[in-house]
Amino acid sequence: MYKIALLPGDGIGPEIVPQAVRVLQAVGEKYNREFQFETALIGGAAYDATGHPLPEETLDVCRNADAIILGAVGGPKWDNLEPHLRPERGALLPLRKKLGLYANLRPAVVNPALADASTLKADIVSGLDVMIIRELTGGLYFGEKRREDLPGGGQKVVETLEYTTAEIERVVRLGFEMARKRNKKLSSVDKANVLESSRLWREIVERLAEEYPDVELNHILVDNCAMQLVRNPKQFDVMVTENMFGDILTDLASQLTGSIGMLPSASLGGEVALYEPIHGSAPDIAGKNLANPIATILSAAMMLRISFGLETEAAAIEQAVDRVLQQGYRTGDIMQPGKIKVGTVEMTEEIIKALE
Amino acid sequence: MYKIALLPGDGIGPEIVPQAVRVLQAVGEKYNREFQFETALIGGAAYDATGHPLPEETLDVCRNADAIILGAVGGPKWDNLEPHLRPERGALLPLRKKLGLYANLRPAVVNPALADASTLKADIVSGLDVMIIRELTGGLYFGEKRREDLPGGGQKVVETLEYTTAEIERVVRLGFEMARKRNKKLSSVDKANVLESSRLWREIVERLAEEYPDVELNHILVDNCAMQLVRNPKQFDVMVTENMFGDILTDLASQLTGSIGMLPSASLGGEVALYEPIHGSAPDIAGKNLANPIATILSAAMMLRISFGLETEAAAIEQAVDRVLQQGYRTGDIMQPGKIKVGTVEMTEEIIKALE
Ligand SMILES: CC(C)[C@H](C(=O)O)[C@@H](O)C(=O)O
Ligand SMILES: CC(C)[C@H](C(=O)O)[C@@H](O)C(=O)O
Repeated sequence: MYKIALLPGDGIGPEIVPQAVRVLQAVGEKYNREFQFETALIGGAAYDATGHPLPEETLDVCRNADAIILGAVGGPKWDNLEPHLRPERGALLPLRKKLGLYANLRPAVVNPALADASTLKADIVSGLDVMIIRELTGGLYFGEKRREDLPGGGQKVVETLEYTTAEIERVVRLGFEMARKRNKKLSSVDKANVLESSRLWREIVERLAEEYPDVELNHILVDNCAMQLVRNPKQFDVMVTENMFGDILTDLASQLTGSIGMLPSASLGGEVALYEPIHGSAPDIAGKNLANPIATILSAAMMLRISFGLETEAAAIEQAVDRVLQQGYRTGDIMQPGKIKVGTVEMTEEIIKALE
Repeated sequence: MYKIALLPGDGIGPEIVPQAVRVLQAVGEKYNREFQFETALIGGAAYDATGHPLPEETLDVCRNADAIILGAVGGPKWDNLEPHLRPERGALLPLRKKLGLYANLRPAVVNPALADASTLKADIVSGLDVMIIRELTGGLYFGEKRREDLPGGGQKVVETLEYTTAEIERVVRLGFEMARKRNKKLSSVDKANVLESSRLWREIVERLAEEYPDVELNHILVDNCAMQLVRNPKQFDVMVTENMFGDILTDLASQLTGSIGMLPSASLGGEVALYEPIHGSAPDIAGKNLANPIATILSAAMMLRISFGLETEAAAIEQAVDRVLQQGYRTGDIMQPGKIKVGTVEMTEEIIKALE
């Protein structure tokens, strides 16, 4: 029996997480696996109900689970709260930190059925399959932040970016391991011509590289990397980078695919891993049965593979998604002329049918 | 008489800067303007000759000039020097800081003759004309940086990101002014859901916005911005952002055009402004008459317009460049089937012919 914590969160979160649950239940029946679900509050929804975006109870539910599925957090309603009460700084970041989720894995994969959904030319992105690993619990995100009033008027903000050898080493090692399982190419992204943290990062990458002679390593500066992702993204296999660079580059890379509503992610490192769609809470379309549930459903597949080692079951979900796309079903975000437009619930039903 | 400091620098720098000089001389003859040039060492070239990448004499030459044209600095030869002796941290960053060049202007413009050089689909980028303003003398680039040995082994790096109200205000104001002269849209890019510096940034933007009711303002998070630049870059007019975000986003934006060898830049703020191509020193093609001189030539045009107020002369250069591209002349980096491939010197000669 597998215990799964569900954190629907805000916006479309409460619509898409139940779709992943339905698919997991169908897979469970088919392959005779038992999944048990426990739902907890997070983000604006938790703030509204309890006065805090990350209640202690939610952390307990997560710690008692074998894996976590998160929908999304945030929305304009909570944007003007004190920082520590906002869904992002009050819930998402502390959740990552407290659960020790130091590595965020974000695949940017172009589904053949959606190759021309990208704004990039088809030959540049068709067949794209990049895995970006983003450090998730260090750097500017978690450094000290303070404001001072200046004597002559105005203010000064000082915030710190901190990394230790150990923090860098564990995530870079994951990069090498991942590359070894894929096409044996690792690109380490930094800004070593300016930042001291990047110099330490690069030294550690160089040292670990000796243990992975079978992996082809290259260092790339973050500004050049942003260019190369647009110029020729297929040059990359696995990429690894620090938190803030990773935030920017993973979003950029996912946009190359043209179908961000399709992309799952995993956050690993602690006792329990967290799986979530790459997209946000999309408050503008919430509650209308318009959201694409596929990213969340594929996140559940990632969970089956990575946390539970259920490769057959994971592959079954992925193939069902592919089949439904080939059959022409599309939610609004990936709709194309001549295809069959469906809602959140109907898309899930087609995926469940395709599973059988 | 206009006094221009020339800093050719490294790699292709010493090849492309003289091309801009030739074009300026031709323009000077045609419009009866006198330009006087003084050349100084910078980067690896300065290190090799004097032991330091930014000799005091070079700073003097810059301070005595009415404007500066820089080629590019850096190359593998100097990558393993001590940070303070390397072309980037030892010359480029101190030059910006010492001359007070707090605003870097980088246009990302798609030349009609090169519309399909982009890896993005033509309808996404044709007619693209975005101006990005990057803060250039603050943030992580110039904060304190230190390393400590940790008791249990390993190290810790701490670096600081600092911004004051005054530093943010002056560059944001430039953004509003620039937007007013263009299509009256300003996008301010930050990471206000995580960084305190971004919250201060956003407060200042909001405050200044009251003085510019005619400018349509929007705030965009840096990760979303990287996505939007790929999804629909034509939604942007003027963008303004802090140093590190600007480094990444300007490179990304210039790659959208597909012809980074064409793009000029200006760094403003101090007594004397600096103009340089967006591309780097390209050591791999240096000394072979292969480099595209157009970005440097267009940087000279920017100089004429912004520093000297010579609009007619600036436009004459820009039109000459357009004409030569329409005639089919291309350097290797922008070569397309059926066009006429030329070298650095020949491209310049065609531009000078087209001027007449
Ligand atoms: C919501 C925000 C704090 C978060 C981040 O910056 O990490 C998001 O952009 C992400 O990538 O998960
Ligand atoms: C060479 C490097 C230090 C520099 C920067 O990061 O500012 C460059 O990338 C640029 O954009 O001018």
